[in-house]
Amino acid sequence: MRVMGVDCGGEYTGYGVVEQDDRGRLLHICSGAIRLLSREPLELRLMKICHALTAVIADSSPEIVAIEDVFYAANAKSALKLGHVRGVAMLTAAQAGLPVVAYSPLSIKSAVVGYGRAEKSQVQIMVARLLQLAEAPEPADAADALAIAICHLHTAATLQRQHAAAK
Amino acid sequence: MRVMGVDCGGEYTGYGVVEQDDRGRLLHICSGAIRLLSREPLELRLMKICHALTAVIADSSPEIVAIEDVFYAANAKSALKLGHVRGVAMLTAAQAGLPVVAYSPLSIKSAVVGYGRAEKSQVQIMVARLLQLAEAPEPADAADALAIAICHLHTAATLQRQHAAAK
Repeated sequence: MRVMGVDCGGEYTGYGVVEQDDRGRLLHICSGAIRLLSREPLELRLMKICHALTAVIADSSPEIVAIEDVFYAANAKSALKLGHVRGVAMLTAAQAGLPVVAYSPLSIKSAVVGYGRAEKSQVQIMVARLLQLAEAPEPADAADALAIAICHLHTAATLQRQHAAAK
Repeated sequence: MRVMGVDCGGEYTGYGVVEQDDRGRLLHICSGAIRLLSREPLELRLMKICHALTAVIADSSPEIVAIEDVFYAANAKSALKLGHVRGVAMLTAAQAGLPVVAYSPLSIKSAVVGYGRAEKSQVQIMVARLLQLAEAPEPADAADALAIAICHLHTAATLQRQHAAAK
């Protein structure tokens, strides 16, 4: 199974595609971040995100897109800003015919570090280790996106095992 | 000049296209609202908005899209929800090659009713009067979208007069 994680943000939006092979190994397919310049009109920034994510989907062919659930934000203004990017990321996935799943920050950190309140740097280190990368993915937004993808793969595997055990 | 106003909302997203002719008369081209069902996955709801607005743009050929500026929201959750729709509306405009302008709720109500703290029903009545419609546009979200379009036409006309006077 191949999953694209997207870490939405006002300035940087990270993306990361991870595949889990039949033996359960995690493979890093690609990752990076789209940087938005605040001097550009917002609608053009959103179009840049849509184009970039569409290109990543076309190149790497994920089967599903995983994003972060948002439960709180510093304030309504930052929630609105994040909402713009998140809406566009979800629309881009839907336009490519892909379903979207969302995971809480706690689930994502737990899946990768084993501890829900882990620091950003711990997430980067663990993502690199799980994907057998020589260095932590840069920028941190790319590592966060990979962590979201890994969270979905872990969750899907657990659900599958539970399903098999219940048979 | 022909303007499409879009009134973004979590449940109903209103749209309205207004043209101002050379003699300054306002003409109602079309208006309506897209209803989103909360039982549908969010990404499919966002795709519905994108498709509907793309169809309205194709049918009515506006030159610019006007939306409401958001300065506050009841809470971060509702701001995020509104942000999803607003981001998709802006992206849809940009994908059609149209610029996007935003006006404050105060400017929109002032432009239509002449009073920044007007009630929703007053906006509906004044929109109907300004566009010479026999009845107030329904639902209120469609009237709000027409109000945003009228606000842009008023503002553009004022700017043009100021520009001409300064020459």
